[in-house]
Amino acid sequence: MKMYINEIKENDHVNSLFLVKEKSSAVTKTGNTYLKLKLVDRSGEIEGRIWTSVENFAGSFEKDGFVHVIGKAVSFQEHLQLNIASIESVGEEEILFSDFFPMTEKDIDEMFLSLLEICRQIKNPHLVRLLQLFWEDESFVKRFKMAPASKWLHHNYLGGLLEHTLSLVQLVLEVANHYPGLNIDLLLTASIFHDLGKVDELSYHRSFDYSDEGRLLGHIILGIERVEDKIRQLPDFPEDLSTLLKHFLLSHHGQYIWGSPKKPMTPEAVMLHFLDDMDAKINGIQQFIKKEVPEGARWSAYHRMFEQYFYVPPFWEQTKPPDNIEKVSLEDE
Amino acid sequence: MKMYINEIKENDHVNSLFLVKEKSSAVTKTGNTYLKLKLVDRSGEIEGRIWTSVENFAGSFEKDGFVHVIGKAVSFQEHLQLNIASIESVGEEEILFSDFFPMTEKDIDEMFLSLLEICRQIKNPHLVRLLQLFWEDESFVKRFKMAPASKWLHHNYLGGLLEHTLSLVQLVLEVANHYPGLNIDLLLTASIFHDLGKVDELSYHRSFDYSDEGRLLGHIILGIERVEDKIRQLPDFPEDLSTLLKHFLLSHHGQYIWGSPKKPMTPEAVMLHFLDDMDAKINGIQQFIKKEVPEGARWSAYHRMFEQYFYVPPFWEQTKPPDNIEKVSLEDE
Amino acid sequence: MKMYINEIKENDHVNSLFLVKEKSSAVTKTGNTYLKLKLVDRSGEIEGRIWTSVENFAGSFEKDGFVHVIGKAVSFQEHLQLNIASIESVGEEEILFSDFFPMTEKDIDEMFLSLLEICRQIKNPHLVRLLQLFWEDESFVKRFKMAPASKWLHHNYLGGLLEHTLSLVQLVLEVANHYPGLNIDLLLTASIFHDLGKVDELSYHRSFDYSDEGRLLGHIILGIERVEDKIRQLPDFPEDLSTLLKHFLLSHHGQYIWGSPKKPMTPEAVMLHFLDDMDAKINGIQQFIKKEVPEGARWSAYHRMFEQYFYVPPFWEQTKPPDNIEKVSLEDE
Amino acid sequence: MKMYINEIKENDHVNSLFLVKEKSSAVTKTGNTYLKLKLVDRSGEIEGRIWTSVENFAGSFEKDGFVHVIGKAVSFQEHLQLNIASIESVGEEEILFSDFFPMTEKDIDEMFLSLLEICRQIKNPHLVRLLQLFWEDESFVKRFKMAPASKWLHHNYLGGLLEHTLSLVQLVLEVANHYPGLNIDLLLTASIFHDLGKVDELSYHRSFDYSDEGRLLGHIILGIERVEDKIRQLPDFPEDLSTLLKHFLLSHHGQYIWGSPKKPMTPEAVMLHFLDDMDAKINGIQQFIKKEVPEGARWSAYHRMFEQYFYVPPFWEQTKPPDNIEKVSLEDE
Amino acid sequence: MKMYINEIKENDHVNSLFLVKEKSSAVTKTGNTYLKLKLVDRSGEIEGRIWTSVENFAGSFEKDGFVHVIGKAVSFQEHLQLNIASIESVGEEEILFSDFFPMTEKDIDEMFLSLLEICRQIKNPHLVRLLQLFWEDESFVKRFKMAPASKWLHHNYLGGLLEHTLSLVQLVLEVANHYPGLNIDLLLTASIFHDLGKVDELSYHRSFDYSDEGRLLGHIILGIERVEDKIRQLPDFPEDLSTLLKHFLLSHHGQYIWGSPKKPMTPEAVMLHFLDDMDAKINGIQQFIKKEVPEGARWSAYHRMFEQYFYVPPFWEQTKPPDNIEKVSLEDE
Amino acid sequence: MKMYINEIKENDHVNSLFLVKEKSSAVTKTGNTYLKLKLVDRSGEIEGRIWTSVENFAGSFEKDGFVHVIGKAVSFQEHLQLNIASIESVGEEEILFSDFFPMTEKDIDEMFLSLLEICRQIKNPHLVRLLQLFWEDESFVKRFKMAPASKWLHHNYLGGLLEHTLSLVQLVLEVANHYPGLNIDLLLTASIFHDLGKVDELSYHRSFDYSDEGRLLGHIILGIERVEDKIRQLPDFPEDLSTLLKHFLLSHHGQYIWGSPKKPMTPEAVMLHFLDDMDAKINGIQQFIKKEVPEGARWSAYHRMFEQYFYVPPFWEQTKPPDNIEKVSLEDE
Repeated sequence: MKMYINEIKENDHVNSLFLVKEKSSAVTKTGNTYLKLKLVDRSGEIEGRIWTSVENFAGSFEKDGFVHVIGKAVSFQEHLQLNIASIESVGEEEILFSDFFPMTEKDIDEMFLSLLEICRQIKNPHLVRLLQLFWEDESFVKRFKMAPASKWLHHNYLGGLLEHTLSLVQLVLEVANHYPGLNIDLLLTASIFHDLGKVDELSYHRSFDYSDEGRLLGHIILGIERVEDKIRQLPDFPEDLSTLLKHFLLSHHGQYIWGSPKKPMTPEAVMLHFLDDMDAKINGIQQFIKKEVPEGARWSAYHRMFEQYFYVPPFWEQTKPPDNIEKVSLEDE
Repeated sequence: MKMYINEIKENDHVNSLFLVKEKSSAVTKTGNTYLKLKLVDRSGEIEGRIWTSVENFAGSFEKDGFVHVIGKAVSFQEHLQLNIASIESVGEEEILFSDFFPMTEKDIDEMFLSLLEICRQIKNPHLVRLLQLFWEDESFVKRFKMAPASKWLHHNYLGGLLEHTLSLVQLVLEVANHYPGLNIDLLLTASIFHDLGKVDELSYHRSFDYSDEGRLLGHIILGIERVEDKIRQLPDFPEDLSTLLKHFLLSHHGQYIWGSPKKPMTPEAVMLHFLDDMDAKINGIQQFIKKEVPEGARWSAYHRMFEQYFYVPPFWEQTKPPDNIEKVSLEDE
Repeated sequence: MKMYINEIKENDHVNSLFLVKEKSSAVTKTGNTYLKLKLVDRSGEIEGRIWTSVENFAGSFEKDGFVHVIGKAVSFQEHLQLNIASIESVGEEEILFSDFFPMTEKDIDEMFLSLLEICRQIKNPHLVRLLQLFWEDESFVKRFKMAPASKWLHHNYLGGLLEHTLSLVQLVLEVANHYPGLNIDLLLTASIFHDLGKVDELSYHRSFDYSDEGRLLGHIILGIERVEDKIRQLPDFPEDLSTLLKHFLLSHHGQYIWGSPKKPMTPEAVMLHFLDDMDAKINGIQQFIKKEVPEGARWSAYHRMFEQYFYVPPFWEQTKPPDNIEKVSLEDE
Repeated sequence: MKMYINEIKENDHVNSLFLVKEKSSAVTKTGNTYLKLKLVDRSGEIEGRIWTSVENFAGSFEKDGFVHVIGKAVSFQEHLQLNIASIESVGEEEILFSDFFPMTEKDIDEMFLSLLEICRQIKNPHLVRLLQLFWEDESFVKRFKMAPASKWLHHNYLGGLLEHTLSLVQLVLEVANHYPGLNIDLLLTASIFHDLGKVDELSYHRSFDYSDEGRLLGHIILGIERVEDKIRQLPDFPEDLSTLLKHFLLSHHGQYIWGSPKKPMTPEAVMLHFLDDMDAKINGIQQFIKKEVPEGARWSAYHRMFEQYFYVPPFWEQTKPPDNIEKVSLEDE
Repeated sequence: MKMYINEIKENDHVNSLFLVKEKSSAVTKTGNTYLKLKLVDRSGEIEGRIWTSVENFAGSFEKDGFVHVIGKAVSFQEHLQLNIASIESVGEEEILFSDFFPMTEKDIDEMFLSLLEICRQIKNPHLVRLLQLFWEDESFVKRFKMAPASKWLHHNYLGGLLEHTLSLVQLVLEVANHYPGLNIDLLLTASIFHDLGKVDELSYHRSFDYSDEGRLLGHIILGIERVEDKIRQLPDFPEDLSTLLKHFLLSHHGQYIWGSPKKPMTPEAVMLHFLDDMDAKINGIQQFIKKEVPEGARWSAYHRMFEQYFYVPPFWEQTKPPDNIEKVSLEDE
Repeated sequence: MKMYINEIKENDHVNSLFLVKEKSSAVTKTGNTYLKLKLVDRSGEIEGRIWTSVENFAGSFEKDGFVHVIGKAVSFQEHLQLNIASIESVGEEEILFSDFFPMTEKDIDEMFLSLLEICRQIKNPHLVRLLQLFWEDESFVKRFKMAPASKWLHHNYLGGLLEHTLSLVQLVLEVANHYPGLNIDLLLTASIFHDLGKVDELSYHRSFDYSDEGRLLGHIILGIERVEDKIRQLPDFPEDLSTLLKHFLLSHHGQYIWGSPKKPMTPEAVMLHFLDDMDAKINGIQQFIKKEVPEGARWSAYHRMFEQYFYVPPFWEQTKPPDNIEKVSLEDE
């Protein structure tokens, strides 16, 4: 069973799986070579030291690889350190991703089924076929289900892209009939596709970071390319529908300064921009409040991207859905 | 029956009600005094001239007043002009506002009932009592039902404030359960109140314009004052609930540069900001497309506030709700 | 022979080719139907009227079509107007584009040859093959040679895109060896491709305007799609070279606010951005000075896009290349 | 021979020249006074301690002075520290500036000669005489050859101003004939002068920092003053030429926000701005990539001024000038 | 006596002095040449026509010159027009500048004396001598007394620069002792000099416009040059005092975006910036309200530079200095 | 007598009052529980440790409370630490606020009297009565006299709000008669009220921080509410005077981006904005220079809010009021 780094205490015997984040060799004052490691899992990181059999172990595992470690936790200069007796490489198939990376709290397969279910409401035959091409692309689906939606700001965990996409699609469904004359098929399809490029923009198998093409082109262009790629397989896909669909992806950040080289030019594209932005912000804030509001405090830490503090009202948590709000007593009653 | 200005043709005999927008006296080359008027109704404006009995008529009506006019349309320098044989003042009660001002296409009383209906879902007793105070204030209700939501950008017609408020409240209901833990009572109440100050910011009985206090203080502050004014009548209204409610109003423009001196600091306030902005923009765009897209064109005129054009896709209008989209044939199939 | 509109004088008999920019029918005071036209060529525009045989002529030509007109110039309300005796549609093949649209002053075929010549310097086999694919695409080459580089700001005439592209490529050649270690093949190829999408962004067969896809997607994306489209035909084209090439196109506007969703991330991409921007600005200013500096004046009109005036120093025009500058006498010596 | 600080190891005997960056006295727990120094050279900095003969040594050298030090390197709290046995002041003439400060890798005198050579192409007699006045000003020339071009961003080493100026002048020569009708004499002269004020803006004899007048007035104004100062010695220098020359200096940052109180108003001034900016950015990026890209990595560290990362493509380094690019094999072929 | 253009009525015989703003020749339908003029004075402009003796008159006066005109006002196409019987050039000495240009309502010589009076408070001998050099420069003093302070925004009338400078100096005196430790001599001197360059930036002898050097360099640099020019005549003027004085001029716009390439860096420079900006704005607003508030209205027209409206409260005008405010009755008491 | 923390030396016996900023319990390696405290006063902070009678002491005082401490200063890991022998809670009435918080150097009561004195100049009876209501509100006056004017930027010490308000009111008096026709009563009253809301925005009894309502609503709205609250007690207070007064508060930050949702719309409101901003900046700079200019240096540290350095000229400090400046000798004379 996984022993999490943040649970390790001085003198614990440790026997568990970790990810090697840093690996280097050094020399003691007495001239012996040893290995310095940084081991991580979902819960934190810890220094590791290999003092013996260095030559044997040195070649048996790699930086950025998963390892099985046996050792003992000791205290050195006020920090815990793992003296490693044995270490060996393990394959990806032996580990649970969720032991090593933050992961959505929702069920990925369930979310994916919900998304497919919603797709059934789409009637436009071109869009139906286009979506089908994506769902039939197993390699894509695998990445789409696992990718985070961003490195920091919101849904920044495995499964986050799917969670955000599903959330947006549901929002669209909830409000789409609110305005007369909107093209709901297009709205739903564009919502499903809007952040598609994030499966390529972010690499997330060892740590969350941008891929080369992610940094050089960004998820907007990468997403358009993926959509274009599938449309090419549909010879009678209408050209203006294709242009419009790509316009939705291109404009969904809303403004030049936020990375969209075009502003949304139809009511549907405007709606997509607002609901996407709202969903990202609310998720981001709720995540941030969870982590960055000290117990009992009313204010979060300063959020550097949003350049503000967030407030947790005293009577908030007790608040329930409408049907039983009546019983809520506010603090100063 | 009302004869609309844009229906008047040369040589028509005119016998109808108008609003006097401008009124001045002038002298003909032959030395006779006459009156120059500009008459308006919902459909446009026309020059009027009183050549006879000037002394009698001059005092019988006023600029910005409604009048009953009998006369004949003649052509002068390529424009129509009304030679007025008789003119007399009429009271507000004799006219239909919708003959003179743009008006919501929806039924005002029905919208108001829908709003009241939704209020019943609110269970927090403080908020319930606060809302009740507003609905019992007849003078307020009368203004709230008639006010436009803005001078130009969106819902810029009589009843527009109510229409926008109801639309926002419905949006809130549609998405509020989407995120766990939101305080829906507060969200609903804040949505109802968010643009309240517009009943004072805009004057709209003769033309849409800003009132003095509207220009000097703006609807955000005026709304907060109206809310504060009612809360003062509820001695045990919790102070932090009051602060939070006012924070929603204060922050609903989202950013300093858009006129909010505070950014939204709770997920609910963030949601209110996005949905409000989205509702205003979509209404604004749909109104603009209605007026500023030439017959058969795919592009609107340039929208100076939004600094862009809007697009009307060729297959748009035929688009129907999901269940029959399948039959829509796209142009290039 | 073409008779230019700005040469037509009162009472001239006119017998020439024009483009029909506007066409509508109207009714005279006496109840007769007539046709109102606006005719244009490169030199200006003139009102046209068809008073007789209206039924015959009405169906024989179309708005936005070229026509052969016979008529007489008369003066009406201080403006010239063409009373048309006969009008008939003519095909594109019968007209000279340069009679109707502003055109580069350089020889288009010569410029194109110069560009091909420069392409020979490129040695990277992948890029060589990619360029070849473009040059072999006749439909593309035809558009590439004719397209303007923009609607207003610079090279806003037929052949302008080619002129600007050639100018940029030559600039790149002139400075590329200035810095050590730059990848010149990539720089040259990216320069040739950088504004490629303008062949699709602008429509320019009847008037210069944006195409639908131009407005919805913009030339950056349209250019990337054209490049992607050709690369797909080269199965062993290296993926990172493809990504980088697309990064050049994507980032060549330099900043978010100028429409690039990514900033240039290599020295070559930075250079492309600067030289492109410089070439566009200098051409734009020189064009502007030509048109908007009154005879003998030192200052141009106000340039609304650049938000400034431009200066024409008194001793400017006499200035010659270095070898004979010595003889230039400055005005106040 | 100079022993560089980054080469000193524990227990080394040190006998070399250093610059005293900090100097203070302190008291040991046992009550003895000692001196704490920070010594620097081009390669780094090291703590120094004088435990004996403190009174003798204390007055024999000064902060910001060069010193000859004899001592031994010991380890204290994991850092190296120099126990100094003897220290004495040395004059500037005894040291090599390049031992202490980063310095251009190019030959300063050669660069200067190249610049003079280019000046010969200038034919306008006023500009020729003006340049001569500068070159005859020995004190100026000495500073001009040694000054860095900036504290951080680009050419931030001794000789950097000259290197940047020469680079810009060469760029101007390379592209100046590209556009018809440019006044090349003026362009060259303005390029030579454009950053002139940096000889006064930055102090760089002990460390790179802004001088008082540099901070209060900036190099643009300081440069204009130096030019004005020389022009005053040329009584028949044309006034409009003088105004224009100063306009080039004043506007070369291109925009208000970048510190130019006037935008460039002639094509030549626009060109100067772009080429200057390009040369600074490319130098800055190439320097940054050299220092801030880890061995084997494709991405630089984050550049805080430019607010971005820079990319080093995998096939970059092998890239050669056009004539042998053909042999380059790209990684994924 | 001057007959002002806005007082001329149809059929008036006109015999007065005007400024010729435009002058061109044209041909009547009957083939006769005539002269078209635009005549202006302080009060407005009027078209002039010379139908007879055209050859004689044509050479006897020039555009931008003052003329003595005899003629008759007739009505043509609803506008007044002057049929000129005789016209002849008059010299500047024969006209009153204030008949032709807006002029300060204050006495220029009195204002100048007040300024000199204040200068006596300055004790620093360097600054005293520097100021003296300026006051002894008759050509400067003449321009300084006549120049406007800007083309549009504030003090945009002859004498405006002096009026603004005196106002600022008095403000400085009023508040300078408010803060401890400010260098009042420097503040006063810098205030006197701050807009000095406007004597060169604006040309105002025929119309208010920018001079070439005004547009190319701006008043900040031109002012610094004038100060530098005088300081050069004072060999022992302390260099750091000179630098600081120039810093005041350079930074007085407060921010890059407002045209100052340096921000104010001492409390005195900060104060100068604020008081200068305040004085300009308040004068600008008061002028604007005078002209652009319709009789009886509470709101000004829209001020395009300030992007806002200004408010004239109903009880404003009756407001008196403190000692009798008590009697003011507010409208709704 | 208070012993200040920055005066405590190793081995000192300490017997004085402190504020407990942090309090937690920990366990020694030997398993004994001890208390870790952070104690602060105006002069700094020091670690405290309670090794004995932990159970007794633990409950006898609280975080954020004032305490009487007896103990001994020892050195631990190069830092001083207080070994506490006895600690007990003391009430607010036993301490001097100025021992614990930075405090204005001026006399608070004297400043308040000066303010009252100035109020006597106000003659408008409505404003007189309104001010009286505030001065009669003891709870308000107490807070108004003690509140700081900001957390960081200026007047950031107890009494700072009063000091800033008085300073602004005096500035207004000094310049108000400078411009004709200003309503001085309104200006004075608005100046007194402009930052009123800071008594509620900042909490400052234990540390300077924002209150909940301060963060959610801000001092502008809180101030308007306080003013509104008093006006409500004056039934015949003119409505437009009330609106205008609130407009002054609302607009005193001058621009949207600085937190004012309305720009100043009368000359008086413009003046208030400028003088307020100037007073805050000059105080802020003078405070900053006092603290952040090293002895003998001419330049301050970098001011992160103002994004600049400040300059202290060499001859500054000797500078005296005009009458004796003559004797000042400048450094380079």
